Amino acid sequence: MSRPPRPQHDPKSVSFEAIREAAARLAPVAVRTPLLHDTPLDRMIGGRLLLKAEPLQRTGSFKFRGAYNAIAQTTKSAVVAWSSGNHAQGVALAAALLGKRATIVMPSDAPRIKIERTRALGAEVVLYDRSQQSREAVGTRIALATQAEIIAPYDDPRVIAGQGTVGLEIVEQAQELGLVPELVLVPCGGGGLIAGCATAITSLVPDVAVFAVEPEGHDDTARSLAVGERVANAPGIRSFCDALLAPEPGEVTFTINRQLLAGGLTVCDESVRRAIALAFRELKLVVEPGGAVALAAVLAHRIDCRGRTVAVVLSGGNVDPELYAQLLLAQGNATAALF
Amino acid sequence: MSRPPRPQHDPKSVSFEAIREAAARLAPVAVRTPLLHDTPLDRMIGGRLLLKAEPLQRTGSFKFRGAYNAIAQTTKSAVVAWSSGNHAQGVALAAALLGKRATIVMPSDAPRIKIERTRALGAEVVLYDRSQQSREAVGTRIALATQAEIIAPYDDPRVIAGQGTVGLEIVEQAQELGLVPELVLVPCGGGGLIAGCATAITSLVPDVAVFAVEPEGHDDTARSLAVGERVANAPGIRSFCDALLAPEPGEVTFTINRQLLAGGLTVCDESVRRAIALAFRELKLVVEPGGAVALAAVLAHRIDCRGRTVAVVLSGGNVDPELYAQLLLAQGNATAALF
Repeated sequence: MSRPPRPQHDPKSVSFEAIREAAARLAPVAVRTPLLHDTPLDRMIGGRLLLKAEPLQRTGSFKFRGAYNAIAQTTKSAVVAWSSGNHAQGVALAAALLGKRATIVMPSDAPRIKIERTRALGAEVVLYDRSQQSREAVGTRIALATQAEIIAPYDDPRVIAGQGTVGLEIVEQAQELGLVPELVLVPCGGGGLIAGCATAITSLVPDVAVFAVEPEGHDDTARSLAVGERVANAPGIRSFCDALLAPEPGEVTFTINRQLLAGGLTVCDESVRRAIALAFRELKLVVEPGGAVALAAVLAHRIDCRGRTVAVVLSGGNVDPELYAQLLLAQGNATAALF
Repeated sequence: MSRPPRPQHDPKSVSFEAIREAAARLAPVAVRTPLLHDTPLDRMIGGRLLLKAEPLQRTGSFKFRGAYNAIAQTTKSAVVAWSSGNHAQGVALAAALLGKRATIVMPSDAPRIKIERTRALGAEVVLYDRSQQSREAVGTRIALATQAEIIAPYDDPRVIAGQGTVGLEIVEQAQELGLVPELVLVPCGGGGLIAGCATAITSLVPDVAVFAVEPEGHDDTARSLAVGERVANAPGIRSFCDALLAPEPGEVTFTINRQLLAGGLTVCDESVRRAIALAFRELKLVVEPGGAVALAAVLAHRIDCRGRTVAVVLSGGNVDPELYAQLLLAQGNATAALF
């Protein structure tokens, strides 16, 4: 903890200083989400688990942090994004708080609740026909017509710096408990959250090991790290973890992640279901599938946590109530067997 | 906020200083649970809602606070309690952390999961036959035989002082946000949580209005406050809110509550169900029925919150997963209609 932050590792990358600046921007508006600790899960893994509870963040996921940090730095008065998930809500709320107009491009068959929630946050929602149009084309046309700035979901240094405040808070909050994380596990889709977290955490704790966690079939970052260059997922594979479906690592995010990550771990859907049910039972926290993969990796013993201080990011909690209810009913017997 | 704490109001009562001492005892072991704020619920009530998230407390409810504060002050090496709910787990964990033996008396037909969880926390569980024996008789016999101290669930000044740390933290955390609560709503069973909270909060914010919230059929505190003396609930009425089934206000708790509370509010089961579903959807927090009554009162407009800063205690999150799942499925359409 005593070494000074390492110098910026790449000119295209994100500096520790940029994350500090993001933290200052976010302080008045974002939730400093709790780092749960001393939970019954410690006994299950035989180590000390610190759980960063981003479902308690505004809009229910970490995405608000990066969106706000990016939009706070644009000089334009309008922004555009395409997303049917957490990025949409993050951009909508951030723009509203910053007094900018937001347009969100969503497929016309997106769940009605997601469309209505994005509108309720003050954004204009433009629907497109998934079978006829590309969202990039629709969004870019709107951006040109309205002189709006496009807010990318992860491959933007401002977004990455915003997500990095999650990592900064983990180290600070662990320190308040007298602890230093040895292992850090972070859910990984396009890689923005983990790139920011790894930048912050390795700057403050140089000998920490940071792992990306991905669902089976979407382990592009794990495979890219293994071969040293970006490789894509096989197209067309759906996943239970709808927040982690990026086709391949981002260019900016992978430039950071290949330098800073210790590796990638993969989890199956069943272990994610078990993690969600245990978060309900033991943490009283609602975690969405994509938000639970890092916890799933720990509980499924994908890495040895015995005797170690392990930080895990629970990245979001926006899950359909019916899906969640069915999962709890199905997992009831499975988790009861643990006691 | 500038006035000094009022002097102790009654010799049988709990002083503000006792709550400060409890806070110091609890600091190394309890969670300083977050005070959720800036949530989408603000728009629904037209005011500023601060939600104290005790489901994130150790053992999943505030009960750990009072149990720990009481057990830390006993000179005996063993404790006894009777409870099949949150008090059982609070006593079991507190005793384990303090190196004391705990015996918990539970009905033999208690849910297996509750018995196993209490045992997993290191307590000895003694089962009794609900139709043949009284739990008080069983517990008192064990206390005599083992020279153990009985830890009452609410009518004990040490327990009340421990629960009062919830109120202390509410005022401190509101202050960190630049806010002072004008209204405070607290779930009420035997009255220990609200007696402690009211003592702490009215000491620091003399003109605050603190209300007890109870489920229909168990509004003994509201009726007792109205007539100025303790009156009991009609016997035999069950409630969805299983954590709030005390037969009448406690003697110590009512002595405090009659002096400090602004009144009592009552909520129906359906409004509690709605509050639980909204806590899932908007807060990502699992709240049990008894823990959700104060939020239910606010959402059902049982009191005017418009333009006001309103603190609400969510007191626990220990809910059966099957009950929770069925509730989410049934509430799905009802809450979707809000957007």
